[in-house]
Amino acid sequence: MEYRLSQFVAQIKPVSTAWLAKAKERLDSLTKPPGSLGRLEELAARYVCMREELLPTLGKKRVVVFAADHGVVAEGVSAFPQEVTYQMIYNFLRGGAGINVLARHVGAEVEVVDIGVNHDFEPDIGLISRKVAYGTRNLAQQEAMSREDAARAVWVGVERAQEAVAQGVDALAAGDMGIGNTTAAAALGAVFTERPVAAVTGRGTGIDDPALRRKIGVINRALSLHRPEPNDPLGVLASVGGLEIAGIAGLILGAAAAGRPLLLDGLIATAGALVAARLAPAVTDYLIAAHRSVEPGHQIMLDSLGLSPLLNLQMRLGEGTGAVLGLGLLEAGLKIYREMATFADAGVASK
Amino acid sequence: MEYRLSQFVAQIKPVSTAWLAKAKERLDSLTKPPGSLGRLEELAARYVCMREELLPTLGKKRVVVFAADHGVVAEGVSAFPQEVTYQMIYNFLRGGAGINVLARHVGAEVEVVDIGVNHDFEPDIGLISRKVAYGTRNLAQQEAMSREDAARAVWVGVERAQEAVAQGVDALAAGDMGIGNTTAAAALGAVFTERPVAAVTGRGTGIDDPALRRKIGVINRALSLHRPEPNDPLGVLASVGGLEIAGIAGLILGAAAAGRPLLLDGLIATAGALVAARLAPAVTDYLIAAHRSVEPGHQIMLDSLGLSPLLNLQMRLGEGTGAVLGLGLLEAGLKIYREMATFADAGVASK
Repeated sequence: MEYRLSQFVAQIKPVSTAWLAKAKERLDSLTKPPGSLGRLEELAARYVCMREELLPTLGKKRVVVFAADHGVVAEGVSAFPQEVTYQMIYNFLRGGAGINVLARHVGAEVEVVDIGVNHDFEPDIGLISRKVAYGTRNLAQQEAMSREDAARAVWVGVERAQEAVAQGVDALAAGDMGIGNTTAAAALGAVFTERPVAAVTGRGTGIDDPALRRKIGVINRALSLHRPEPNDPLGVLASVGGLEIAGIAGLILGAAAAGRPLLLDGLIATAGALVAARLAPAVTDYLIAAHRSVEPGHQIMLDSLGLSPLLNLQMRLGEGTGAVLGLGLLEAGLKIYREMATFADAGVASK
Repeated sequence: MEYRLSQFVAQIKPVSTAWLAKAKERLDSLTKPPGSLGRLEELAARYVCMREELLPTLGKKRVVVFAADHGVVAEGVSAFPQEVTYQMIYNFLRGGAGINVLARHVGAEVEVVDIGVNHDFEPDIGLISRKVAYGTRNLAQQEAMSREDAARAVWVGVERAQEAVAQGVDALAAGDMGIGNTTAAAALGAVFTERPVAAVTGRGTGIDDPALRRKIGVINRALSLHRPEPNDPLGVLASVGGLEIAGIAGLILGAAAAGRPLLLDGLIATAGALVAARLAPAVTDYLIAAHRSVEPGHQIMLDSLGLSPLLNLQMRLGEGTGAVLGLGLLEAGLKIYREMATFADAGVASK
């Protein structure tokens, strides 16, 4: 599987900047001062470059929510019990979670993938079952997963992107569910950004000071134990990562390979992006940072990817909630690009 | 008219904070860590307080775009010629401007009001004709408008809010069109925030350095000539304001009096808010700062109102384009509040 993955990532190319000038020419012909719609114009231009078309459409939008459990919850690093992971999956499937509400608001589909939840679900409930394991092992004591499982979980994500594109999805967003996953994400953040654990570790779902100190201690112990090597992203993922983070990394690789934009969410999705960018640096051309999370590590991780978040709404829910708001802004930018009248058409005097 | 206005503003009350605890209780019962949807939760709670209902609906949304001309364009303070104001009105009415595209995106209606355009429009073209004058006079040389006209223009805005509410509009946004209006808005900003003109004056539609210096000089001259007194908001408006800014001030007063939220746009709308807040300080309870404009004076003006912008997308178009994106976020917040499942309903374990 690792060989297959390495062959796949080799095909990911940077976006064609040849289209940038064409997109800018059109944007500047529209009835507004040049550049006055700021980042909406940037989003439109980036989309044109990804699609390599002068007037691309943006139809179906989908957020893929990867869910998995984390053995590290045994260390008392989360404010919520592990069963919340599977309970929230039922909530997703019934449409009652934050991600369902916000996805409906922006007109995006929600796909929920069991990539590693510690629970057996009934068949035919609308869940995409791609369970690689019943959660990770406790990364403070042993490798979170085998290297083979890490590669398999990444591949699950690649396939979700491929299937989405085959079904006509034009823009993807990454979401996550997994009690304990900010611990794994912070560990990945510390490894890939080479910053101290305390700088990239936050309160997750809302832990108190003693639990935060414990969480930082757990991650430091794990890094001392595994000594992960940032230039071996799959090895890092296996030692201190999570299955949903691996799935997100794969979704990013799949989106980039297909020339589709991928909207990042917060800490968890961005940890997946750090893995993906080590496997294929060109993926950052396809990444759009939807928002800045309250988690202190998030901005550090975005900075290391060279991404600037669109929104800063003090959110920290995960699930893809920030990412789908970003999908809405991407669509707004493309509508500006496609639907606004030009100075010539509207008979408006230009500068 | 001034007496009528003073009687009207006396009825504007601060929002009832009694509803805040009730809104927060519901928000914390929803399947998410408490507070994890950040400013979306804040928007929902503020809306509940404004509506004084536990489960208010948010149906129709409307942006009111006030258009007017400015005599000060004779000083060479704008990158575009004056006729763009009326030409853009035709663009608005045909649906081809930025505000039309973004209003459609968020599902908001667009109302265009001629409150002072230097052009005679044909009847029955879908324009709300409330022309107070054919633009203002050159504020560098004389009072921009009479005190009576300033009061009349504010009243036009009050009536637009009242009519919107009568037509079932639940949330309003303020927009503007008027070549030269960043000069008037910066002058108002300097007076009400008591900051130097150079600190609150920017490039508007995109003037170069010599024109920017000229613009700052023009505003300084006007302030020396008129010596406007910040505690006389109508007098300030008359001496250095604009008719569309007056209309926006009125729209804000009307929205606040009816208990409806008003989404501010950029520099122009916020100048209107400064006027409105001097007439009735409680209006700030009903104001939502949708975005932070590139114009340097905007954040200074928002700070003086105690408002924190939701978005920072490097926009500077005006027309209400930032404000309608804010309407979309307000609606997202209210949907979270109304549509998410509770921990009890979803069978999810809480903290």
